[in-house]
Amino acid sequence: MTAVVIDALDGFPEVHPGVDLARLIGDALLQNGLCPQANDILVVAQKVVSKAENRLVDLNEVTAGRRAHELAIATNKDPRIVELVLSESTDVIRAVRGVLIVRHRLGHVMANAGIDRSNVPHVENKELVLLLPQDPEASARVLRAQLIERFGVELAVVISDSFGRPWRVGTLNVALAAAGLPALHDRRGQTDRNGRVLEATQIAVADAVAAAAGLVMGEGSEGTPVVLLRGFFCEAPPCDIKSLIRPLAEDLFR
Amino acid sequence: MTAVVIDALDGFPEVHPGVDLARLIGDALLQNGLCPQANDILVVAQKVVSKAENRLVDLNEVTAGRRAHELAIATNKDPRIVELVLSESTDVIRAVRGVLIVRHRLGHVMANAGIDRSNVPHVENKELVLLLPQDPEASARVLRAQLIERFGVELAVVISDSFGRPWRVGTLNVALAAAGLPALHDRRGQTDRNGRVLEATQIAVADAVAAAAGLVMGEGSEGTPVVLLRGFFCEAPPCDIKSLIRPLAEDLFR
Repeated sequence: MTAVVIDALDGFPEVHPGVDLARLIGDALLQNGLCPQANDILVVAQKVVSKAENRLVDLNEVTAGRRAHELAIATNKDPRIVELVLSESTDVIRAVRGVLIVRHRLGHVMANAGIDRSNVPHVENKELVLLLPQDPEASARVLRAQLIERFGVELAVVISDSFGRPWRVGTLNVALAAAGLPALHDRRGQTDRNGRVLEATQIAVADAVAAAAGLVMGEGSEGTPVVLLRGFFCEAPPCDIKSLIRPLAEDLFR
Repeated sequence: MTAVVIDALDGFPEVHPGVDLARLIGDALLQNGLCPQANDILVVAQKVVSKAENRLVDLNEVTAGRRAHELAIATNKDPRIVELVLSESTDVIRAVRGVLIVRHRLGHVMANAGIDRSNVPHVENKELVLLLPQDPEASARVLRAQLIERFGVELAVVISDSFGRPWRVGTLNVALAAAGLPALHDRRGQTDRNGRVLEATQIAVADAVAAAAGLVMGEGSEGTPVVLLRGFFCEAPPCDIKSLIRPLAEDLFR
């Protein structure tokens, strides 16, 4: 019987800029009685990675340009946030009242370039917002290497964020980065139980891992940004998150 | 510590039209040593529900109309399959070579109206394909009622299918139906840890459950279409899958 177990790490501390995130994660694992094993996957919420990497920006230090002002009027958003969104993006997909969907410079199509005001520390005279990590794939690789160094087992790391989706209501956790596992499992050419070749079977492994972790990670006030997922192993060779990003020109749904 | 455990039921038999699916599932649970508990979620692959409900169609009995022939040329698909896709759909979203994305009559935007040739029984002189269940929500409610009757505990049922997504490569399991749990958890108006009101926090619970189950369900040859997910509980009131479907006119991404 294939069993996957997903544990949220209780008591994870507030993350401050410059902190050693791998050490915090390792300590939290042990405090939760979890000793990492080979093929364990640590799913880490983007927010704590961004905070550790000091991706906080004070809106009082942002000056909105003309394009940001125009889009701020169209979307009814703070022009300074729109300025940051534009600085983190390569394309604007949709801008209407309350909605600003962009293609992030990392390739993800997402709302507000992932810039978030919730669960950001309150500092007097500052209006802090949090950007995505500069390079989440590099962050995941470094975290993984540090955790492997500490525990001596080949674990994997996924960095997750919560995305809205076209055509469906509600957010779902997806992967921003994957280190040590196949973000995509390409099974085209394999056969079904009757010997028929599978037609369209590329499986978004890293997104499924992130979504599963979302069941215990929660949002808002829970404060469980790190999750251990155990018992899942995909035999495909590791590949990074770029394999999950479809070029805009090849998008099949538009 | 919040722990979710996901078990794939081994040894699930081939499903034939007219079979008592609830009985098969109940038997498989016991054979796998799993006694259902309150709040357990059974995730059932659409394929076995469709087979049990005899949603098999022989392509030799399908006559393609003019529109189907036109779209078959544009997409390089079998005109009889295209005819079935159209009969199951309300809108064609995109039709290009190899790709036919529609809005299914149930509301889901998906490729080929979910019609599938893989893992369908081979019968001489027939070319069988499998449609989605006529009414997956009703199927889920009936399965749930039958399993509650047998085991005497308040469990939930999700029917899942594998979807492609705009802008991202690879398929992900999503929910076609949910009975006994909130398909959508609407947390708008709640606050984060610093007291700031959460801005956009509707969580696609049923889709996250389906995606998580997908980690152990596999595709193709594995034959594990039923999964037990234990340890997840969402306090929101149950609501069905329609809460996850965004009207085309309100889609934010186009």
